[in-house]
Amino acid sequence: MSARAGIVVTGTEVLSGRVQDRNGPWLADRLLELGIELGHITICGDRPADIEAQLRFLAAQGVDLIITSGGLGPTADDMTVEVVARFCGRELLLDVELENRIANILKSLMARNPGFDPGNFDSIRVANRKQAMIPAGAQVLDPVGTAPGVVVPGKPAVMVLPGPPRELQPMWRKAIQTPAAQEAIAGRTIYQQQTVRMFGLPESALADTLRGAEGAIDGFDALEITTCLRRGEIEMVTRYEPDATDVYARLTEVLRDRHGEQIYSEDGSQVDDQVAELLTGRRIATAESCTAGLLAARLTDRAGSSAYVMGGVVSYSNEAKAAVLGVDPALIQAHGAVSEPVANAMAIGALQRFGADTAVAITGVAGPGGGTPEKPVGTVCFAVLIDDGRTAIRTLRLPGNRSDIRERSTTVAMHLLRRTLSSERRP
Amino acid sequence: MSARAGIVVTGTEVLSGRVQDRNGPWLADRLLELGIELGHITICGDRPADIEAQLRFLAAQGVDLIITSGGLGPTADDMTVEVVARFCGRELLLDVELENRIANILKSLMARNPGFDPGNFDSIRVANRKQAMIPAGAQVLDPVGTAPGVVVPGKPAVMVLPGPPRELQPMWRKAIQTPAAQEAIAGRTIYQQQTVRMFGLPESALADTLRGAEGAIDGFDALEITTCLRRGEIEMVTRYEPDATDVYARLTEVLRDRHGEQIYSEDGSQVDDQVAELLTGRRIATAESCTAGLLAARLTDRAGSSAYVMGGVVSYSNEAKAAVLGVDPALIQAHGAVSEPVANAMAIGALQRFGADTAVAITGVAGPGGGTPEKPVGTVCFAVLIDDGRTAIRTLRLPGNRSDIRERSTTVAMHLLRRTLSSERRP
Repeated sequence: MSARAGIVVTGTEVLSGRVQDRNGPWLADRLLELGIELGHITICGDRPADIEAQLRFLAAQGVDLIITSGGLGPTADDMTVEVVARFCGRELLLDVELENRIANILKSLMARNPGFDPGNFDSIRVANRKQAMIPAGAQVLDPVGTAPGVVVPGKPAVMVLPGPPRELQPMWRKAIQTPAAQEAIAGRTIYQQQTVRMFGLPESALADTLRGAEGAIDGFDALEITTCLRRGEIEMVTRYEPDATDVYARLTEVLRDRHGEQIYSEDGSQVDDQVAELLTGRRIATAESCTAGLLAARLTDRAGSSAYVMGGVVSYSNEAKAAVLGVDPALIQAHGAVSEPVANAMAIGALQRFGADTAVAITGVAGPGGGTPEKPVGTVCFAVLIDDGRTAIRTLRLPGNRSDIRERSTTVAMHLLRRTLSSERRP
Repeated sequence: MSARAGIVVTGTEVLSGRVQDRNGPWLADRLLELGIELGHITICGDRPADIEAQLRFLAAQGVDLIITSGGLGPTADDMTVEVVARFCGRELLLDVELENRIANILKSLMARNPGFDPGNFDSIRVANRKQAMIPAGAQVLDPVGTAPGVVVPGKPAVMVLPGPPRELQPMWRKAIQTPAAQEAIAGRTIYQQQTVRMFGLPESALADTLRGAEGAIDGFDALEITTCLRRGEIEMVTRYEPDATDVYARLTEVLRDRHGEQIYSEDGSQVDDQVAELLTGRRIATAESCTAGLLAARLTDRAGSSAYVMGGVVSYSNEAKAAVLGVDPALIQAHGAVSEPVANAMAIGALQRFGADTAVAITGVAGPGGGTPEKPVGTVCFAVLIDDGRTAIRTLRLPGNRSDIRERSTTVAMHLLRRTLSSERRP
């Protein structure tokens, strides 16, 4: 027994590459978690004939569930529900109660937007009546934005979700619970999935370890392992049926033995989770040059970070390093703005200016200009200072273009912070 | 006449979302430039049956050209050429000359990699013999890495390209010049494409305008219009054949007439380009609370921004607003940290601390906590100050979750900056 699914992503802006599809990969992850095999993702523009052709293709491949994303808006090119109804051989019926709900959502949106001309209200409501047309017998999924979704029962069942990820994601959680969806995926196999995250390890070294493990561990073939380089980290995801739990345990022993220093997470947690945990009860400040706020933004990405993030300075110019962080201009003169002494002075400035107990400073050459033979593009200096005396100061040469270097610098800073905060306290 | 294409992206790592597909969007751009209509992008794993099903699907849709990416490597799961040969009804033949070329590439790779075990050479050469098996009558595309591509003539013609973008992209340029590819796309039409960008307009209001235009403008159907909401802006892309240029001109007149205030770009430029242009010769500083560095990071995203970005302060705590930006704590006490007077005082602090002539401040409730009935989650105050007296101070309520509110605030600040910098100077 198994359950197989296909995903239809609609939208001319996605097909043409102007907007990157985030729904296909996100849904693929959800299906994997549930033990549903994904056969195909297909992408087409806002053309009814193309959408219908893709639905028919997936049905012909024998999938149990089709998930569509996009094409639920009020405009004329939003046709997905109509096409799905035709594909499923069901009539479209006006759901009056749903129409009222959408109208109320629109009213409240308009009330919050005082610049909105109320004279348009009727024409908008007419446009939104289209969104209340539902295939007969389908289950309505309440709008997260203004667009409702639907789940149409059958073989395959069709789940119709909106395009914007912030609407699709919460709606998915309800959609998969509907009887029609549950019936479609009844044959799925429950897999275990484990993630190991490593930092500072070349992908080829891990590949070498895995080749060795293949010969040394009985039943290794029961593990479906994929490795992926992401944001300068290696993520190794292993999927297996429950009876291979021991095989996976043996693999993790081999990994810990060979790469214990580089493994920082075996429980799915990200470095951001671990840093947030380590910062509990502390007060952190940042001083950024080449990353220009990316580290502060990343530290405050999660709710509740105001408990430990005091703030930061983006000292993009040398004047700002001196005036706002109190870095001695003579130090910049002597060592250059991209140097360990300046990174250290920036971190001291951040500690003092924000009354913090933990500080991180980043100064580097993000390029494409500004490189020298001694300090080529990609040279980045880091300083982490903790008020109990623990420190870490490093210079790295990071690969890639301007955007890669800025992002990678932010990740390196997170790991340096994690390691320093979890190191032994000095007496 | 027209030419239509489909793209087949293969690879379990892409299907599962662990690796983001960059080939589909890149090829979509190239096809658009050439006037070839793209009907479908399909993604499947490394399973021959799924790849073949997708090829048959695209052929049934009547495309003139199929482009595949991935599955050309030496390992057992790289099956694309074999599947394509079967699909095209052509035998696989060993190309001895190509086999030698691949062997030479491998030798030189190994010479550059001293850690490589030469004992493996024979087994590797056997594995790579597979890469020299070519469908009868196909044109070979020389390897960029170690994998050759092929173009198989026919209706549809099939172009088989490697998965890594750095190999696919140079190979594409040669592949599209082959007689088989040129014959397949002979019917292509040269299209015009124009982009209009708007800010501050609900998508439904634009939909209303377009419905009106459909009735009022002769030949409106010659325009293929797609609208897309992105980062709080609407992007409207219109594609048409050259003889519909006048129809598009009439549409832009209608748009300017109804939404002149909200249209900020008709030449493809983004708000980031326009702000960079307006900041030439100026010195800008930022003061951010809820966005915590996202605006500074966005302003410095482009090379050369150090000419006008001095820096910024992330004043996440009230203490930081006072200590680093000099905001009077009594002002925070009286109006709250999220208030126009505090935003204004933050901008004044940024001007002074960084010796800037232009400053932007953002303070808001990004949530999920911290909202009050008076200032619910999403309430964000903005201040733009220019040293010649031009100012803009606004309070908005932004929709969405924490991440949406932070990103949208950054976009609003960019537009407020653009408008203020391009407004009339006060005497």
